[in-house]
Amino acid sequence: MSRLSLNQATIKYADLATALSVTTRAGIGSIGLWREPVAQVGLAEAVRLVADSGLRFSSLCRGGFFTTADPAARQQALDENRRAIDETAALAAAGAPGSRPVLVLVAGGLPEGSRDLRGARARAADAVAALAGHAAAAGVVLAVEPMHPIYAADRGVVSTLDQALDLVGDLPAEVAGVVVDTFHVWWDPDLATLIARAGREGRIAAYQVCDWITPFPADALLSRGLMGDGHVDFASVTRWVLDAGYTGDIEVEIFNQELWDADPAEVTQRVKKAYETTIGL
Amino acid sequence: MSRLSLNQATIKYADLATALSVTTRAGIGSIGLWREPVAQVGLAEAVRLVADSGLRFSSLCRGGFFTTADPAARQQALDENRRAIDETAALAAAGAPGSRPVLVLVAGGLPEGSRDLRGARARAADAVAALAGHAAAAGVVLAVEPMHPIYAADRGVVSTLDQALDLVGDLPAEVAGVVVDTFHVWWDPDLATLIARAGREGRIAAYQVCDWITPFPADALLSRGLMGDGHVDFASVTRWVLDAGYTGDIEVEIFNQELWDADPAEVTQRVKKAYETTIGL
Repeated sequence: MSRLSLNQATIKYADLATALSVTTRAGIGSIGLWREPVAQVGLAEAVRLVADSGLRFSSLCRGGFFTTADPAARQQALDENRRAIDETAALAAAGAPGSRPVLVLVAGGLPEGSRDLRGARARAADAVAALAGHAAAAGVVLAVEPMHPIYAADRGVVSTLDQALDLVGDLPAEVAGVVVDTFHVWWDPDLATLIARAGREGRIAAYQVCDWITPFPADALLSRGLMGDGHVDFASVTRWVLDAGYTGDIEVEIFNQELWDADPAEVTQRVKKAYETTIGL
Repeated sequence: MSRLSLNQATIKYADLATALSVTTRAGIGSIGLWREPVAQVGLAEAVRLVADSGLRFSSLCRGGFFTTADPAARQQALDENRRAIDETAALAAAGAPGSRPVLVLVAGGLPEGSRDLRGARARAADAVAALAGHAAAAGVVLAVEPMHPIYAADRGVVSTLDQALDLVGDLPAEVAGVVVDTFHVWWDPDLATLIARAGREGRIAAYQVCDWITPFPADALLSRGLMGDGHVDFASVTRWVLDAGYTGDIEVEIFNQELWDADPAEVTQRVKKAYETTIGL
């Protein structure tokens, strides 16, 4: 299971030091971090902790949220994303060999009161383009994450892999790619074709795995389960991603209240077991 | 508001006679019915009630649910759909001039324990094709409804208008079309193009309106609101549907617990008001 990476959101309530240590102790070689727990200790300390952990760093979650039409708010969002780019570069440099300077970008939803989905999408594309220079200078890949259409209104207006690939199409592949997250894209009738396209265009910046579970929980954000607990055909999707030439880590990222409430060390064991059964690489 | 049709699901707890009378009394000229309340009084009585109401009949909800891989269960589903086709023909014939013999089809989800989305989708396509002869003989249009991807696992494996149009592509347009329901397709980045394609191919069998509301309610099936209460740009989508040549009724179909709990006569007034503001035709 050399490509397994634990995304920190799966053990959301663990602080950075705990997240790193339970990952190491579980024999998992790689971790994906979130900005909030990094900020909690400060970037310098986070860099030191990552370096000391001996783990690979697979991505930072998350930048984005730049669909606003207000010029001042937009500038603020871009500045925030530049800081996220710098953090990504520092953390990736601190990680073990094989670390990947990937910043996951979630577009953000419709601005308050707006119904102009097309406009919000255009502004998201503009924002990624505006960040490309800074990302290139820092050696960071901006990874646009298409989000399940359930989030189109309030979280992510980029809804399909097709749309994400179009969005980054004019930027160099070493600067802008996409995230393939099974939870978000598993339903797409064109998924096999789109993953192949993403590979052909050199755009698969990250592969995240998480199952789609039913019945749908009361909190729609938490409708995610361990691989094998839901409806996603991981064998097929993983084969498409590998056939598309993706060679990086495979991140397990699961928002699930029951996992969050459990002991992080126990969660890493459950993640390993689910990963072994469904992915195994 | 001559094209407004009230879909009976919006006043779910009203029986057929009540649904017809509150619709008539509200000055709404058309109604979309559901099979369960029709079955409650029996088809013959339902036909009589519809004829007496003077209302147009705009569609019957719903057939479908034919993704099973079990031959006996599949046969049962096809038989049930043939009965639904016959009911559609009878009800449309009983309605006022301008009634439309449209049967809305929801594909159904993944069979229990299955993760073979592609297989389920192929079986849905086969089932529609298998029903085409019966529909043609009855003069009924099979209207495949793409459902929001949130329902792909447990309710409807047909997730996009693109996929629905491909699914009916080999059948005559007078026998098989698609439903454009704003709730299900509003997020689609290609929506304008796909509605234009649906029109060009003569496939728009029904146009249903309903808003996408946030925050998402605890029951994901009820995340629907009156037009204007959510995020859908009805002006744009309606323009695309009209530009595509659709001339039929416009059905208001809303699953919302608060509306269901209200007095049906009051709901019809709220529907009219919301429709007038957002659609107006």
